[in-house]
Amino acid sequence: MIFIKKVGNQSYILSKPVNIASTASIVGPKEKNGPLHQFFDQCLEDEFWGEKSWEKAESKIIKETVNMAIAKSGIPSKDIDFCFAGDLLNQCIASSFGLRESNIPFLGMFGACSTFIESMLTGSVFIDGDFATNVICAASSHFCSAEKQFRFPLELGNQRPQTSQWTVTGSGCAILTKEGTGPYVTTLTPGKIVDMGIKDANNMGAAMAGAAEDTLLTHFQDTGRAPSYYDAIFTGDLGHVGKDILIDLAGSKGYNIKSNYNDCGVLIFDKENQDTHSGGSGCGCIASVFAGYIYQMLQQKKYRRVLMIATGALMNSTSSQQGESIPGIAHAISIEV
Amino acid sequence: MIFIKKVGNQSYILSKPVNIASTASIVGPKEKNGPLHQFFDQCLEDEFWGEKSWEKAESKIIKETVNMAIAKSGIPSKDIDFCFAGDLLNQCIASSFGLRESNIPFLGMFGACSTFIESMLTGSVFIDGDFATNVICAASSHFCSAEKQFRFPLELGNQRPQTSQWTVTGSGCAILTKEGTGPYVTTLTPGKIVDMGIKDANNMGAAMAGAAEDTLLTHFQDTGRAPSYYDAIFTGDLGHVGKDILIDLAGSKGYNIKSNYNDCGVLIFDKENQDTHSGGSGCGCIASVFAGYIYQMLQQKKYRRVLMIATGALMNSTSSQQGESIPGIAHAISIEV
Repeated sequence: MIFIKKVGNQSYILSKPVNIASTASIVGPKEKNGPLHQFFDQCLEDEFWGEKSWEKAESKIIKETVNMAIAKSGIPSKDIDFCFAGDLLNQCIASSFGLRESNIPFLGMFGACSTFIESMLTGSVFIDGDFATNVICAASSHFCSAEKQFRFPLELGNQRPQTSQWTVTGSGCAILTKEGTGPYVTTLTPGKIVDMGIKDANNMGAAMAGAAEDTLLTHFQDTGRAPSYYDAIFTGDLGHVGKDILIDLAGSKGYNIKSNYNDCGVLIFDKENQDTHSGGSGCGCIASVFAGYIYQMLQQKKYRRVLMIATGALMNSTSSQQGESIPGIAHAISIEV
Repeated sequence: MIFIKKVGNQSYILSKPVNIASTASIVGPKEKNGPLHQFFDQCLEDEFWGEKSWEKAESKIIKETVNMAIAKSGIPSKDIDFCFAGDLLNQCIASSFGLRESNIPFLGMFGACSTFIESMLTGSVFIDGDFATNVICAASSHFCSAEKQFRFPLELGNQRPQTSQWTVTGSGCAILTKEGTGPYVTTLTPGKIVDMGIKDANNMGAAMAGAAEDTLLTHFQDTGRAPSYYDAIFTGDLGHVGKDILIDLAGSKGYNIKSNYNDCGVLIFDKENQDTHSGGSGCGCIASVFAGYIYQMLQQKKYRRVLMIATGALMNSTSSQQGESIPGIAHAISIEV
């Protein structure tokens, strides 16, 4: 008999909860004008932050976010064993350029907008498996670098459909440690790739909702928990459209999440006044909302049990041009105080 | 006192060696004409394999390679806990589209051409940490999709400088398991990002050699091993130029690796007759050479101790256009019978 920490089909209960020692978040000017602005460590005045390109600005954002989280943790960076990070830029250059001076073993992650929780999930395994004492988990995105890369030149001023989402300019970082007083990562549910056949790259929420449903329901079935186990359930960036689809999908399978579920992409912008249509998206969405807002709610014990489900759309502009549908993925972790 | 499996600064000795149950490799027509052709499971006749685009062909290559490795292992795919995979295409679409029907929890990796060993390193941690019994580790690259994305349209027929490398069309996959008769993954040395200031995107070998040196010397210092501990040491894709630099760099620090070191990019093509200049590169280079040639040498006990060091250049075409240098990374694992 082989001992495995697995429960059910694809969930894992850590043998010892992994501590979240500190978090940090830096966001852009649009996020500064959004409802969560007071929870972020720093809000930038413009999208460049003194750099000559949006890509360089994004690298600076993730670099400074990681440095801030390390400083808050009080852990000397020589005592940090691994850095898990990724982003949306081609070949993940925001992370690799932003963190190239860190002098910490670096494992690049890519799960599109699920990257932050994929990093926390992987970092938790490394700590629980006795391969690390302290690890960095980080992700970033940038509205301008993402628009330029995935859609149209910003200078064109293209009209955006109502299902489209607004990529968050921002980064979030969490420092996970073997010892500490919490909040703690307690349960992991890594996700499978789910392709619902959606081909509209301006409707990512619909494309990712099936993956979110799959991971959410698997998590409940594996752990025997009901939605009411959690004070709050958050998806990463389904936006208004995807959020409603997920509520319907889960409801149709007997899981009512209406009262305690929300989406970080819905929370970060004011739909009525910010012209962000279906809401926020990007690796930096769940990363900054978790590192800013949700972590503070956990520290203040306003939430005691939270389920974070990060969603990612595993496509690029070439795959859309070649007529492909958009595969989705969702990774979940439970965080408890 | 916290128990960690670390030795020295950044190496790890597994508490129980992780078994490599099977491997599989599929390569393209250029690789079919190279010196290692008889070691690959399948060599394709053309770069399309019946698909309408190079990207779709690459997805098919990684998909069929993974399916072949699973079939060889005899493990039902429902008993596989995780798939770790990545590639060079923007947003890693070769892996996500190729493996979207696998129905196995998927963690996307990105370490450029180091992705295959990054996946094996991470998969080994998941197994050793009791989070998995069986995992898939895979990576792919494709000459045509890579040239199109990183350099020039192939139709232009641009001349290539002598330091340039030829991206391998191919994929390699390894199935790692908790139990088995070997070969075994025994030691891990994850790498840090090292930027030597090289800005020539046609000289990747030079850009990555510093990272390879850093990881190689760290591995020796952490484990107390000398180069002679290994029957063979392989880097991933330094090519002829980078290989010579690494020999010099290591030699200058007192580590003579001349007699038992080679590079997978040097081995896969015939420099004299294939017009591949400095040699092979790409995620599929070390993946297919390990899964094809080196794994068979280990099974036949022609090698008993091998050190695999995969190297990656963490840049994209935008970073080069913006005048950035090329950060490198290298991850190492020891494999023993």
